[in-house]
Amino acid sequence: MLYGGIEAGGTKFICAVANENFKIIAKGSIATGEPQETLAAVYRFFDQYTLSSLGVASFGPIGIQPGTEDYGYILQTPKKAWQNFNLLGAIQTRYAVPTAWTTDVNAAAYGELKLGAAKGADSCLYLTIGTGIGGGLVLNGKIYSGFTHPEMGHLFLKRHPQDDYQGSCPYHHDCFEGLAAGPSLEARTGIKGQDLPEDHPVWELQAFYIAQALISYTLMVAPTKIILGGGVMNQEHLLKKIQCSFKVQLQDYVVTPPLAEYIVKWGLPNESGIYGSLLLGKEAIV
Amino acid sequence: MLYGGIEAGGTKFICAVANENFKIIAKGSIATGEPQETLAAVYRFFDQYTLSSLGVASFGPIGIQPGTEDYGYILQTPKKAWQNFNLLGAIQTRYAVPTAWTTDVNAAAYGELKLGAAKGADSCLYLTIGTGIGGGLVLNGKIYSGFTHPEMGHLFLKRHPQDDYQGSCPYHHDCFEGLAAGPSLEARTGIKGQDLPEDHPVWELQAFYIAQALISYTLMVAPTKIILGGGVMNQEHLLKKIQCSFKVQLQDYVVTPPLAEYIVKWGLPNESGIYGSLLLGKEAIV
Repeated sequence: MLYGGIEAGGTKFICAVANENFKIIAKGSIATGEPQETLAAVYRFFDQYTLSSLGVASFGPIGIQPGTEDYGYILQTPKKAWQNFNLLGAIQTRYAVPTAWTTDVNAAAYGELKLGAAKGADSCLYLTIGTGIGGGLVLNGKIYSGFTHPEMGHLFLKRHPQDDYQGSCPYHHDCFEGLAAGPSLEARTGIKGQDLPEDHPVWELQAFYIAQALISYTLMVAPTKIILGGGVMNQEHLLKKIQCSFKVQLQDYVVTPPLAEYIVKWGLPNESGIYGSLLLGKEAIV
Repeated sequence: MLYGGIEAGGTKFICAVANENFKIIAKGSIATGEPQETLAAVYRFFDQYTLSSLGVASFGPIGIQPGTEDYGYILQTPKKAWQNFNLLGAIQTRYAVPTAWTTDVNAAAYGELKLGAAKGADSCLYLTIGTGIGGGLVLNGKIYSGFTHPEMGHLFLKRHPQDDYQGSCPYHHDCFEGLAAGPSLEARTGIKGQDLPEDHPVWELQAFYIAQALISYTLMVAPTKIILGGGVMNQEHLLKKIQCSFKVQLQDYVVTPPLAEYIVKWGLPNESGIYGSLLLGKEAIV
């Protein structure tokens, strides 16, 4: 049995094939262009294999309520060519195998729960902090969804008193993503995020906002673990700053698990999403 | 069969007995004093009946993880005499019947789901806005809990640009409860909330903060319905202001159900919690 997985991102599509032991035996990365050319490359990759399942984890927002008209579609994304594109439908037309469909961050949360930093837990929240900010949630072993999937990158937050940056979110300006996604670092300092020294004061702001969002998640759903991934988290010093700010801001209002175990970095760096899509595909086999 | 229910609040304990049709046949209200005298009055009330079950819905924070040491306890409340008090244990010692145990707001969410404004839905979020702010969550027909129950009154929020009130939360100052619970109205205006005219500008602030919190809940868990209760919601004009501010602030980032159906007032005014406790008690009968 071979399982296929696609992590469809706004920048690149990652395609992978895993064997029965969930060892990835082939992997490809395709720059995200127009839908037809991107999918042509996706098909060239998977046509080489006889798949038993295919899990698709997509950038969002996406339609995720089975039985509704927009199920399987990418919805109102800034990427115009992908707006209202039936991605799952295209995949299902090409490959007559059981499929799974969720957001990239939900798949990452699932991958981390089954094979990564939350292995053995029954629930976890995964947050990626990179060019954008997004989160996924697994509760009692299942990907959580209400009338739509979580959009936890767009919570509003309390301002840091030393911050007057207007924020970069095209919808909300100074929501979490607008204040703390990767581009905010360069916008505030004129220096690219990866070149900023560890002791630059902007990291305090960054940790303040990330910690505050984690407090909101904790007060709402109290997940067993919070897992942080994405390019910004490659800053080794940042995790500790986030844990400290979390403690200061929460003021011990709820008793959390020890923070060193509660707020952790991804266990499958850069691969949480693709592993999640492979796993979800497999589980779609009845 | 007679079912008992207790809504244990910081101001008063409401006790009720319902018959098999969930008609309340007796109800009592006891001012919350020291634990022993309060419970003595609770016992005097229930000793008159032969109960089949007893559901207890308490002010929090409470210990809710079965099997842990503090299960059934009221935890670090500002009400010193009730700190670390084993309320469920006391009830179970007095009455040898199946019991249920949750927060007052979780019980209210459950009551609204089964008999109130969310009847027929599979999930709802209940928020009370009164002296304090608290919320409960029912997902797929079950009261939601992570490592602890939700504490959604303490989310941090973005400031309204015309608001310089420092906030009244003893833990976080200007969190949601600190900025928008009932006492903030008088603190900002010098006028008691119930005496403020409908066109007073403070209601815009109030609606702004409540709507913003509802956006955070929506982006996190996207419940089928959000139900608002509590003394502040007795202001008839407020619901519409909240719905308007919700739309303006969310900027159509997610497609919600129509707001007139999505954000609604309680269907069991002042009784959501007691009905929830009666229902949960009944369901504890195996």
